[in-house]
Amino acid sequence: MNIKNRCAACKYLRKKCPLNCIFFPYFPPNDPQRFAFVHKIYGASNVAKTLQQLPVQLRGDAAECLYQEAKCRMSDPVYGCVAIISQLQHEINSAQSELAMVQADLSILRSTRVGTNYRWDTHV
Amino acid sequence: MNIKNRCAACKYLRKKCPLNCIFFPYFPPNDPQRFAFVHKIYGASNVAKTLQQLPVQLRGDAAECLYQEAKCRMSDPVYGCVAIISQLQHEINSAQSELAMVQADLSILRSTRVGTNYRWDTHV
Repeated sequence: MNIKNRCAACKYLRKKCPLNCIFFPYFPPNDPQRFAFVHKIYGASNVAKTLQQLPVQLRGDAAECLYQEAKCRMSDPVYGCVAIISQLQHEINSAQSELAMVQADLSILRSTRVGTNYRWDTHV
Repeated sequence: MNIKNRCAACKYLRKKCPLNCIFFPYFPPNDPQRFAFVHKIYGASNVAKTLQQLPVQLRGDAAECLYQEAKCRMSDPVYGCVAIISQLQHEINSAQSELAMVQADLSILRSTRVGTNYRWDTHV
């Protein structure tokens, strides 16, 4: 492969891009930041090792997830994507608490229902 | 520091543990797996760089989050902790859908309520 068609990784690392380059399918030259991020967080050799140990059909997903995690770590150097997990767990707890309260209301209403044909047992 | 009191990182890397070792407070010798995981996923020098760029009071949280993310990546080499984020987003969507349905039920009940003193407007 000539030097003009190097993937983002080989371009970043200033080396030739071999025909069987492990990075080429997942780090296209038109998105240099994608490789720069994973390189900064994991290092090129760790990314290569992670991809090489996987079946070809899973490497695209793995590269994307490594990129997403690296992006999180770049924007939040302390908590990385653990911050997102904490935030989502907080949202789940809120939604579940609200659900429990509304379900409790429905239970009370069930026991006090008078003169309606509404089906009470649809969702609770 | 003598060789018996090396932190898990210096022990793993088979080197002396200096007095100002960046790893020592966060990778105690009694938990060798903790360093082994972050070393495998990020490499020792990337972990050191991440810690060094942070104020001392945030390094403990950062080390813990790096460890959690590395543990996720070890157990799921394709999706890492992005798998947890996807799972949590799915749970939030389910909880929010269920909440919307129950709230819709309550709205219907509001419009059909007959002969009760229950306060309908508590949670919706």
